[in-house]
Parts: sequence; C-alpha cells; structure tokens
Amino acid sequence: MLPFGNNDEQKAIERIVTIVTPQEAFLAAFSLHPAGVAVITGNLDDGTPAGFTATSLASFSATPPRATVNIAQHASSYLALAMGKTVILHFLSGDQVGIARAMAGDFAQRFTGDHWAPGLDGLPQLHGVRAALLATVVAVTEVGDNATIVFEIKDGQTHPDHPPLVYVDRRYHHVGDIVAD
Amino acid sequence: MLPFGNNDEQKAIERIVTIVTPQEAFLAAFSLHPAGVAVITGNLDDGTPAGFTATSLASFSATPPRATVNIAQHASSYLALAMGKTVILHFLSGDQVGIARAMAGDFAQRFTGDHWAPGLDGLPQLHGVRAALLATVVAVTEVGDNATIVFEIKDGQTHPDHPPLVYVDRRYHHVGDIVAD
Repeated sequence: MLPFGNNDEQKAIERIVTIVTPQEAFLAAFSLHPAGVAVITGNLDDGTPAGFTATSLASFSATPPRATVNIAQHASSYLALAMGKTVILHFLSGDQVGIARAMAGDFAQRFTGDHWAPGLDGLPQLHGVRAALLATVVAVTEVGDNATIVFEIKDGQTHPDHPPLVYVDRRYHHVGDIVAD
Repeated sequence: MLPFGNNDEQKAIERIVTIVTPQEAFLAAFSLHPAGVAVITGNLDDGTPAGFTATSLASFSATPPRATVNIAQHASSYLALAMGKTVILHFLSGDQVGIARAMAGDFAQRFTGDHWAPGLDGLPQLHGVRAALLATVVAVTEVGDNATIVFEIKDGQTHPDHPPLVYVDRRYHHVGDIVAD
C-alpha cells in the first residue's frame, strides 16, 4: 500500500486497516460510501417482469432529464434495459428494506407477493415508494463485462412524506440529523 | 401527470405534489434520493489542480475494480478526467461539509486553504476523508452535453472511524440508525 496518509492519525489507522490489493481498496471504500436504494423494473421481451435493487442510480443531466445506472451484462434483468426499452425507476422508502432485499434475491421470487402490480405501460410498479420515474433507455455503454445505461425521464411522481433509505457500511440505515454549519 | 399512483394514499399525495414536466419529476425525485458525497481531484495539462464535488460516484465492477462518475462536458474540471488521466476519488466524512461546499463553489477558490496538499503523483489530496482511491480514467462516454467517466482503481485507503456524510432533500445529513428488520 502506498503512503497515502499524511498525518499521525492516518498512519495509526493504516496499521489497523490493512489494504493489500486495488480491488480490496475499492470494495472497502465503496462499502463506506452512502447510497440511496433504487429498484428498477421492466419487462423482458416475452413480457416476464424483471427488476433489481441498485445503489448506483445517479443523475446524469437535467436538460434533458437523464439518469444512469450500472449493471453487469450477465445480470438477469439486463435485457429489460436494452436500447428503447421503457422502465420504472423506484426510489425506496425507509420502510422498504424487505423490498430491497427481495429484489436483490432469487430472480424467480422477486415478483412473488403483493408489493407490486402491473402499472404504466404494463410495467411492474412497486407500492409505497418515495419517488418513481417512468424512463426510456437512450444509451447503453458496455465496458468489459459491465454496462452503464442512460435513461431519459418521461414522467414521474414523488412522495416526500415517505422517509428516505440509505445503504452504507453494508447495512440499511435511516437518514440522521442535518449537519450543523 | 399520468395516474402513477394506485391507492388512495398516493392519490391524496398527488393532489399536494403537482409535477408538470418530466424535468420537474426528475429534479424532485433526485432531490429525494440520498447520495454519498465525493470530491474528485486531478490536474489539468498545465499542472493546475482541478476538482469538484460529486454525488454521482458509483460502483461499476468489482473485477476489475472500476467506478463511474457523471459530469458536464463544460465543467471546469472536465479536462482533468480525459482518457489515461490519474485522479484521486475522495469519500467525504460527516465533518467535511465545508469542503463539499468549497469544491462545488468558485473554481478559482477551490484550492485556497489548508484542506489539501500535493499527494500521490502530484495530485491534490484532501485531508480527513473517509476513504480515498487512486484511479485512472479508462473510458469516457459522451451523451449529449454530459459524459460518464469510468475509473479503474489502482490503490487506496479507508478510515472507517470517520463518520459518513449523506446528501438528501437538498441538505447535508449524518447517517441515522440501522433500519430494524
């Protein structure tokens, strides 16, 4: 490990947290990075509902309104995100950890239950979310075995009275107090 | 606005939160989406330090270890993220709101102060962060006026004893309690 730290406090911590490879550094750093929790749903070509929990959903541009998500090309939902496909981007609430876990679990069981119903455009729509956006895939960039999908937002609604959900330190958390200036 | 909701509670909320355009829906939804706060620093070709606060930093792949960030092509730091450039991805702590604001403010003032020093590879390195990764730009995808940058991680360190920082509802927050199962 390179001598990244530059004060005694950091050197003391380095002795505790031993990072050997770039991959270990990457995994450790991103486990420390808070993220909102989204579920992206769509339909495969045969109409089968598909969806997955994502912590990589990010704003891309405001004009036009676009967002990105990163996904492995071997993921079970990848073909539901092909160019021109329409999806729903769901922003989960603080009381939806069960949905976050279900939509990251066994693919065949993700739509077993009453947490969803067929909604706009016949797309799987989750109940009780903090926000939902209807979006179309306008770009797919494959790099190695993964891809960045660019969505353009077509419609949506928000429910700001639902509390937010944040994933950090390998656990789901509520959001805490505003940081004092 | 399309009839996105499908129960009485959602219909009641729709009457309060009126969203007219896709852009308004996009802005409202992403303001509700929690995000970790990163600062990405590099050098312009003439050696001038460059950097910016980003809430779009996301994991891309674990093997090889890669991450993405979204940026406007007109941004003052864009040329520091060209193919092959090396940068430092800093993950800010809960006590670094001042740095988050400074690195999103006037470009000429971002490196005025003692919050940084020249570090690895002569790159601007911030003090007191929760994690830092040394990374190289391996892909740049321009879509419209914006771009997704793919970084490959080369080295890094973490300081998990520093508290996390999360941005949501247009304010900086601490992270709260773990959500009970």
